[in-house]
Amino acid sequence: MLARTLSSQLSERVGHSVHLRGWVHRIRNLGGVRFLLLRDRAGIAQVVVPSSIDLGDVGCECVVAIEGVARAEPRAHGGFEVGAQRVELVSGAQTPPIEVFKPVSVEQNRLETILDHRAISLRVPEVLDVFRIEAEIVRAFREHLNSQSFIEIFSPKLGLAGAEGGSAVFEVAYYDRKAYLAQSPQFYKQIMVGSGLERVLEVGHAYRAEKSETSRHLTEFVSLDFEMGFIESVQDVMAILESTIAAVLAMLRKTCAPLLARRKISLPKFHVIPQIDFLKAKEILASRFNKTDGIAGDLDTEGEKLIGQWALETHGSPLVFVTGYSVACRPAYAMPMREDPSRTESFDLLFSGVEISTGGQRIHDYDQLVASFRARGLNPASVEGYLEAFRHGMPPHGGMGLGLERFVKQLLGLSNVKEASLFPRDRNRLIP
Amino acid sequence: MLARTLSSQLSERVGHSVHLRGWVHRIRNLGGVRFLLLRDRAGIAQVVVPSSIDLGDVGCECVVAIEGVARAEPRAHGGFEVGAQRVELVSGAQTPPIEVFKPVSVEQNRLETILDHRAISLRVPEVLDVFRIEAEIVRAFREHLNSQSFIEIFSPKLGLAGAEGGSAVFEVAYYDRKAYLAQSPQFYKQIMVGSGLERVLEVGHAYRAEKSETSRHLTEFVSLDFEMGFIESVQDVMAILESTIAAVLAMLRKTCAPLLARRKISLPKFHVIPQIDFLKAKEILASRFNKTDGIAGDLDTEGEKLIGQWALETHGSPLVFVTGYSVACRPAYAMPMREDPSRTESFDLLFSGVEISTGGQRIHDYDQLVASFRARGLNPASVEGYLEAFRHGMPPHGGMGLGLERFVKQLLGLSNVKEASLFPRDRNRLIP
Repeated sequence: MLARTLSSQLSERVGHSVHLRGWVHRIRNLGGVRFLLLRDRAGIAQVVVPSSIDLGDVGCECVVAIEGVARAEPRAHGGFEVGAQRVELVSGAQTPPIEVFKPVSVEQNRLETILDHRAISLRVPEVLDVFRIEAEIVRAFREHLNSQSFIEIFSPKLGLAGAEGGSAVFEVAYYDRKAYLAQSPQFYKQIMVGSGLERVLEVGHAYRAEKSETSRHLTEFVSLDFEMGFIESVQDVMAILESTIAAVLAMLRKTCAPLLARRKISLPKFHVIPQIDFLKAKEILASRFNKTDGIAGDLDTEGEKLIGQWALETHGSPLVFVTGYSVACRPAYAMPMREDPSRTESFDLLFSGVEISTGGQRIHDYDQLVASFRARGLNPASVEGYLEAFRHGMPPHGGMGLGLERFVKQLLGLSNVKEASLFPRDRNRLIP
Repeated sequence: MLARTLSSQLSERVGHSVHLRGWVHRIRNLGGVRFLLLRDRAGIAQVVVPSSIDLGDVGCECVVAIEGVARAEPRAHGGFEVGAQRVELVSGAQTPPIEVFKPVSVEQNRLETILDHRAISLRVPEVLDVFRIEAEIVRAFREHLNSQSFIEIFSPKLGLAGAEGGSAVFEVAYYDRKAYLAQSPQFYKQIMVGSGLERVLEVGHAYRAEKSETSRHLTEFVSLDFEMGFIESVQDVMAILESTIAAVLAMLRKTCAPLLARRKISLPKFHVIPQIDFLKAKEILASRFNKTDGIAGDLDTEGEKLIGQWALETHGSPLVFVTGYSVACRPAYAMPMREDPSRTESFDLLFSGVEISTGGQRIHDYDQLVASFRARGLNPASVEGYLEAFRHGMPPHGGMGLGLERFVKQLLGLSNVKEASLFPRDRNRLIP
């Protein structure tokens, strides 16, 4: 049998027989000539179907096998087309609930339809592109960190308690007990620094039982994490995150240029991501934006948005680090500043005014960590397996977590984070 | 400050000052000379501590910073050592519950101790090596499949029903509803073939509420999956799996040779993985091993073990594909054989007599799939989001899933699959 030719390979087969396989993207009848657009993983090929061929039940989204001859055709997308000699129906299709050949513009009121019919809406090339881009982001994240001696780990998502504390956890019926879904791999990646790997990365699901629906939250999301030992300060963590973001953007420029162009996305450029201390951010919000509420020890959504605006206007950068959040707004393991113990060696990374990553230096001294847990009314005994690492020698360390879908939302200018999740889960959605 | 030197870099620094950081692996006093073994992510360095230095509280597992001069020393492991000029205690350590400098040989009765004190047992170099090897396996799995145009996806682990049916699912309290943890990414990777990606891979957690404890089962494990469209037959799937296993083994030979040597592991070699039809396997079990029970439509544990033995003796291969399992023993989506509709276009891959992977061709015709669900008493409406992909044109496709921890158990000859899981979960274990 003739080996398959992909739509992207027509230029190599001009004058030769080809065997295309894929989905019928669209059939148009122009002045008696039928143009069949065939979609495969590599793109779309134009196929001219002579009147001698009966297309029968072949319609949009059917899977077909086409034999024909490739030829140059300047008017075809890509410059080549196929003159069909045989069209075989491989798998039939009913009329789809979404027209796959029309670019889907997600207005808020259509998002539910798009998600309800995910098996079909993902076939829209612009929708599917989001996930090709996501795969490249994750690949670059891992490859860059691997090159910096980080090793990938897989930590459990089922456990006894949430690392971050708080009530927004999902409970699992675990035989005759209760378990909880992990809100982050925080404790485990710290243990793995202490195990001697020193530098670890993880790409895995994390779970948050969010109380309310927003365009920025999912109950199940992909968390990109790293943690590193033997740091001098939190600046070492921020430097690795900065170089990782740069590596991700470089990968996208290399491998996803056509997809980005189709969406008219220009990737952010930077040499150094600007940093602003939290107290300075408060000053700017007050003096420049007349905003004084909602920014006690942390920035609220509006505060983040305005600091993002300030960074763009002042530094020309859509990315900005905000550092030094207050102890009260950070978890028990956050390292307090030596010069101001009410604040922490922490950071958020904002992208176009939205927090995409949170990180910092962690407490590595056992007694200090136990005291910090106690000061918050948390029982150290409940995290004994975590504390054991600290009781037996932990180096100074820090790390960060980055929400993949939220990063992609900001990068591609999507209106809702759910557009960046293949099969999103929210308060109301568990299917498909 | 002096930049850090790793234990593996001493040869490059002979005669120069070095700044080592890491954990105290062991201190030995030999005839008045103290040898401190310093462990870091790259290995172990021998440090000679002169009597002028007071080590104070520095003991096993303390984190220390050492300044000294590197020199050649043929009697030291690796041929180099450091003469210490300063030893700084960075982070103290209590006496560890497990002696990290002793190789841990996991006899069944000590496994619980090793797992209870995971933060410490992982520091034992031979224990940690398992996870360095695991990271390389996953990297090779992805890289090889990427090179074959497979794209990585992240499918949800929270959903309404288990893909495989059956009762061994964990229930999650999801707001005012019940959700279940995914037993496999099966339905989602099939939808993604139909989305137009055609070839997808996933590395993610899967959950099985196993009724009983065995040395081969975890309740949470890492599943390596791929699924591919436009196949001619199940042989296409097996060919990709075969080339993937070969790529994984090649990667381990390249990057993990010292770790494998330390464990005296010789990796399996093969040109082609032998295949045996299920009916032929039954014949062999009866004629050669006098085994006729427990092998009705599937092989039981003993049957797998004996076929593994047969493959090694007959083909010299620890790996063997068994094909053509009966319809009754495979899920509703398994493609029946055209020539014998009571059996399926399916396979298991056995490694040293244990099933490490299961796969096959899937039904792609909508009506056939619905009929197959109905024939098993399953309600097609309950998987509407999955069936939608089939109603609108699915190509012939197939794929497989491979349990990472079980593969590593067989590869490294571990006694229990839990040794191949960083923080294993079983019926009784949810911590650390």
